[in-house]
Amino acid sequence: MAQHSGSKELRSRLRVAPGRGPLDLTAYDSSDTPGSPGGKRRTLAATEAMRPRLAELQQRLYAQSTAGDPRRLLVVLQGMDTSGKGGTVKHVATGLNPTGVRVRTFKAPTEEERAHPFLWRIRKALPDAGEIGVFDRSHYEDVLVVRVRALAPRATWSDRYDVINRFEQSLVDDGFTLLKVFLHIGYEEQRERLLARLDRPSKHWKFDPQDIADRALWPAYQEAYAAVLERCSTDAAPWYVVPADRKWYRNWAVGTLLLQHLEMIGPAYPKAAFDVPGNRAKLLRT
Amino acid sequence: MAQHSGSKELRSRLRVAPGRGPLDLTAYDSSDTPGSPGGKRRTLAATEAMRPRLAELQQRLYAQSTAGDPRRLLVVLQGMDTSGKGGTVKHVATGLNPTGVRVRTFKAPTEEERAHPFLWRIRKALPDAGEIGVFDRSHYEDVLVVRVRALAPRATWSDRYDVINRFEQSLVDDGFTLLKVFLHIGYEEQRERLLARLDRPSKHWKFDPQDIADRALWPAYQEAYAAVLERCSTDAAPWYVVPADRKWYRNWAVGTLLLQHLEMIGPAYPKAAFDVPGNRAKLLRT
Repeated sequence: MAQHSGSKELRSRLRVAPGRGPLDLTAYDSSDTPGSPGGKRRTLAATEAMRPRLAELQQRLYAQSTAGDPRRLLVVLQGMDTSGKGGTVKHVATGLNPTGVRVRTFKAPTEEERAHPFLWRIRKALPDAGEIGVFDRSHYEDVLVVRVRALAPRATWSDRYDVINRFEQSLVDDGFTLLKVFLHIGYEEQRERLLARLDRPSKHWKFDPQDIADRALWPAYQEAYAAVLERCSTDAAPWYVVPADRKWYRNWAVGTLLLQHLEMIGPAYPKAAFDVPGNRAKLLRT
Repeated sequence: MAQHSGSKELRSRLRVAPGRGPLDLTAYDSSDTPGSPGGKRRTLAATEAMRPRLAELQQRLYAQSTAGDPRRLLVVLQGMDTSGKGGTVKHVATGLNPTGVRVRTFKAPTEEERAHPFLWRIRKALPDAGEIGVFDRSHYEDVLVVRVRALAPRATWSDRYDVINRFEQSLVDDGFTLLKVFLHIGYEEQRERLLARLDRPSKHWKFDPQDIADRALWPAYQEAYAAVLERCSTDAAPWYVVPADRKWYRNWAVGTLLLQHLEMIGPAYPKAAFDVPGNRAKLLRT
């Protein structure tokens, strides 16, 4: 199937090879569209075209969990402000059955959350068997904003890369498939998107003056992201870098990766554990 | 606006008047289509047409919560097996932003849940401010299946109607709007739907032989539902009876009730709590 092999190719193009060594994000073009089926129009059409297959695979994943299959999918979205994490959730989840989707947005930790180890709030938000979980920000904030803004001493956050790798390995051991996506936008594109928020009163609620201050820390953030990609792209749970300046490309790429990861799981409807003709006859007598 | 007044009318047609006294469900025609904008085709079109408005109101509800507004919406769906609770969630939530939707399916309680008061698992699943929560089954199971199958002594479940009313009043006090919908299907229609599940291997996972045994208890269930509608349709949280034999009507009716309840909340984008032109100028200097 053309789409299937296309998505396989995309996977290898966007994947950060585990153990690849130093990574320089400035070498990644955030406006690129690697592997896309064409320009904007054709890519939008391809995104629509994959929805029925996504919905079918999701239903099978959910169905097989009712027969005790522990498998589930967790999508982790990270990226700078305005990189489109929320927009990606909205577009990719459209057409999925909301009963099997669990979206969790992680904001600055509450006082209660800060009183616990950093993975505490993450563990509470994990998807159940059969579900697709989506994290808009995640445990990676604890080696991103925490590192850049020095919210914890280096000795604390520098241990967390290994802690995260072990945590994710344990999730995979439990039947999770992880899809970790870094939405990569450019410095100029972020300014445009922040301006758009300021220029539309219905978008003011999305704006935080802090976002401007954070732009001064852009190089430090890019460095922190590079460290995440270098140290936490593992065989068990690799990272994918998705160029995100073009929303139509971003939605297609994340949708394609999601589809491809569901195909890797290969969920199947469970066989009936009851006598079908017998129940049919019985039902007709009611 | 025609649609708006149409939904107001629908609300009064389907609402169970608080304190109305004895209610006989056999007097409700489950194949009826009260208030629908026409036949199947026109009703399907009307359902599609309301999606942008639903999405806009949902976004405002979410936006205002970011400025501290505690309001949220909780949809409670109840009905016999195959009445279409899951299908309703799927169709009504399509087009909503999954980030602000929290769907929870309640199955038979686990051992841990049974060790707690019956509202324990309910309280843990409530939507946050700004969210739309959807319960596929709910605390009402504790006066439905528990009553019909005598899973608890009468003295236990008979107190729960008042407990539920006080609980729901407390939710309303906290900023909840409740939309409680009973999906009313007929005995014959249920047989057809169970047969359809048996005849399609991809639907076998939805079938439970217990569903046939439950048909023998149909009158007892109808009585238990009637008791719920009589005793728990309150001014704070009324019940709506939606005839559910026709899926296209059911989806339109629940969508319209949802729209109308969001309009009752009347959410608004919060005003900017920062200096817009000042931030704009500052941003342009980055």
